[in-house]
Amino acid sequence: MDFEIERIAELVEETKARVIRLQFPEGLKRYGPDVAKRIQQQTNVTVLLSGNPCYGACDLDYDAQADLLVHFGHAEIPEIAAQRVHFVEMRSDVNVIPVVNDALRLIKGPRVALVTNVQHVHTLGSVRRCLESAGLQCSIGSGDRRVKYPGQVLGCNFSSARAIDVDEYLYIGGGAFHALGVALATGKRVIAADPFLHRTSISDASLIMKQRYALITKALNARTFCVLAGTKTGQRRLDLALELAEQAIERGYDAYTVTINELTPWTLYQFPAEAYVNTACPRVTIDDATRFKAPMLTPIEFEMVIGKRDLSEYALDEFSSS
Amino acid sequence: MDFEIERIAELVEETKARVIRLQFPEGLKRYGPDVAKRIQQQTNVTVLLSGNPCYGACDLDYDAQADLLVHFGHAEIPEIAAQRVHFVEMRSDVNVIPVVNDALRLIKGPRVALVTNVQHVHTLGSVRRCLESAGLQCSIGSGDRRVKYPGQVLGCNFSSARAIDVDEYLYIGGGAFHALGVALATGKRVIAADPFLHRTSISDASLIMKQRYALITKALNARTFCVLAGTKTGQRRLDLALELAEQAIERGYDAYTVTINELTPWTLYQFPAEAYVNTACPRVTIDDATRFKAPMLTPIEFEMVIGKRDLSEYALDEFSSS
Repeated sequence: MDFEIERIAELVEETKARVIRLQFPEGLKRYGPDVAKRIQQQTNVTVLLSGNPCYGACDLDYDAQADLLVHFGHAEIPEIAAQRVHFVEMRSDVNVIPVVNDALRLIKGPRVALVTNVQHVHTLGSVRRCLESAGLQCSIGSGDRRVKYPGQVLGCNFSSARAIDVDEYLYIGGGAFHALGVALATGKRVIAADPFLHRTSISDASLIMKQRYALITKALNARTFCVLAGTKTGQRRLDLALELAEQAIERGYDAYTVTINELTPWTLYQFPAEAYVNTACPRVTIDDATRFKAPMLTPIEFEMVIGKRDLSEYALDEFSSS
Repeated sequence: MDFEIERIAELVEETKARVIRLQFPEGLKRYGPDVAKRIQQQTNVTVLLSGNPCYGACDLDYDAQADLLVHFGHAEIPEIAAQRVHFVEMRSDVNVIPVVNDALRLIKGPRVALVTNVQHVHTLGSVRRCLESAGLQCSIGSGDRRVKYPGQVLGCNFSSARAIDVDEYLYIGGGAFHALGVALATGKRVIAADPFLHRTSISDASLIMKQRYALITKALNARTFCVLAGTKTGQRRLDLALELAEQAIERGYDAYTVTINELTPWTLYQFPAEAYVNTACPRVTIDDATRFKAPMLTPIEFEMVIGKRDLSEYALDEFSSS
């Protein structure tokens, strides 16, 4: 893996940084001590590692302790002005073409859009040629200012998928997380091609949708809502949180607003409520649904529960740039 | 319990605050929603609750989102300049005299110092009279700028106990936490009088001391140290952390420094090391010792391990004001 040690050493020189902090997402944190050591061997800079949990470029651990934050793994979120932050995007050198060739038999077409995460975003050109050689119409959509690259999706932003009208999506990448999001956000058929496991599949959002409606139904009995407002850099929607609490109170419910950094079952345990409304990371609401003792709703689901939105008008909660 | 709703409403008027945040320690968090509601009934202010874990006045959750932070439970730490923070000290109205009378049979004397936490600090005058009536010499020491009241101790500061030369200490308060700290910090006999359970006991630090030496011994085999630097308002000792890491490296060990907000087994799981050195909250090191998979040492214990301090020169790690 390329942690760009030379480039970081150069940056330290250029910026005259005396203290830098390295931030790794959970999947890369174990490389931190070694990367720190390698940087310190090349420069005189003091290197700190961020020990706080991190799941995206929405969570930048910068403060006055460090002159420069080096964030590994994710691409910058353009709409978040991040001064004194350098992003080391981690690109995978796995060859994606074999699994894409495999995926061809699952693609009905004819209009297919490519989506991926930052790890494979540099492969989309060759994937497109591969699909076009097979006679498919292949496009790559440009998202809003929450994503940096055409075709790139985040767990909370599928604007590059929604940007174009297609029959299906081909997602390149490992895990179910992003492909599931594309399926939930677009309602379209999503073929997932995992180049690491060389495995293809159709992303199935139906189980999640059943779970969402079950939680919405359960929350219909709630009289007390705890509205959550995240404090991580790119997860702040305090105005929305306050508006939702206000709406609940106007309709005769009890509601209060909690600002919180890390959303876990044990931090929420102290805040009794019959339902939670989460304006922070939308994926905590969806992916960690079974971990919380009361239903956790997205803002859109909450509007369904209080009767402001029709139950048939489901939409995935996303962080979209204005 | 008196949450000083009227006083907070006045403060909102005086400071023209539009948004305030209420911060409760874990034991009081469940009262938050009700206190928020009562404040909102008296003023037009927007009230947020802090959802982040809090165990002391060393951890103030203030940022630009709120014009004023109201911190409940603890007394202000004088050495931490806390602008835009109002402290609502929670005083207990339990009568401490009955359990103090009970404790008299355990006191050998003749010179006894009184120590307590902020909940009972207003009772020390009457407790002193009680002890003096029994023929004891009773004193109340003044601590450093980490504590607000004479006789007050924190989990990390026993300067008011060490300020005076006595034969024994009488601790007034519930739980083993503070009394144990007095015993560890002074090495003297500590009689604990719990007014809630009406129970008296002699605080026994010997088990903890055995555990500390067992962990120190285990850490003697460590070659890789992870040095932890806390980021909470009153737990920052980054310079010390960097100095300790430097000392380790100079002596041929591997060492790296991690800045972290919330110290838990699961946040540390990502940082492999044969021993941790904790410069953040000293009580996490002592009280949560068995929760971490590798020995966690205080800075003083670390100096013993690397041979910079004699093994017989044990001292409790404290946050002392300079």
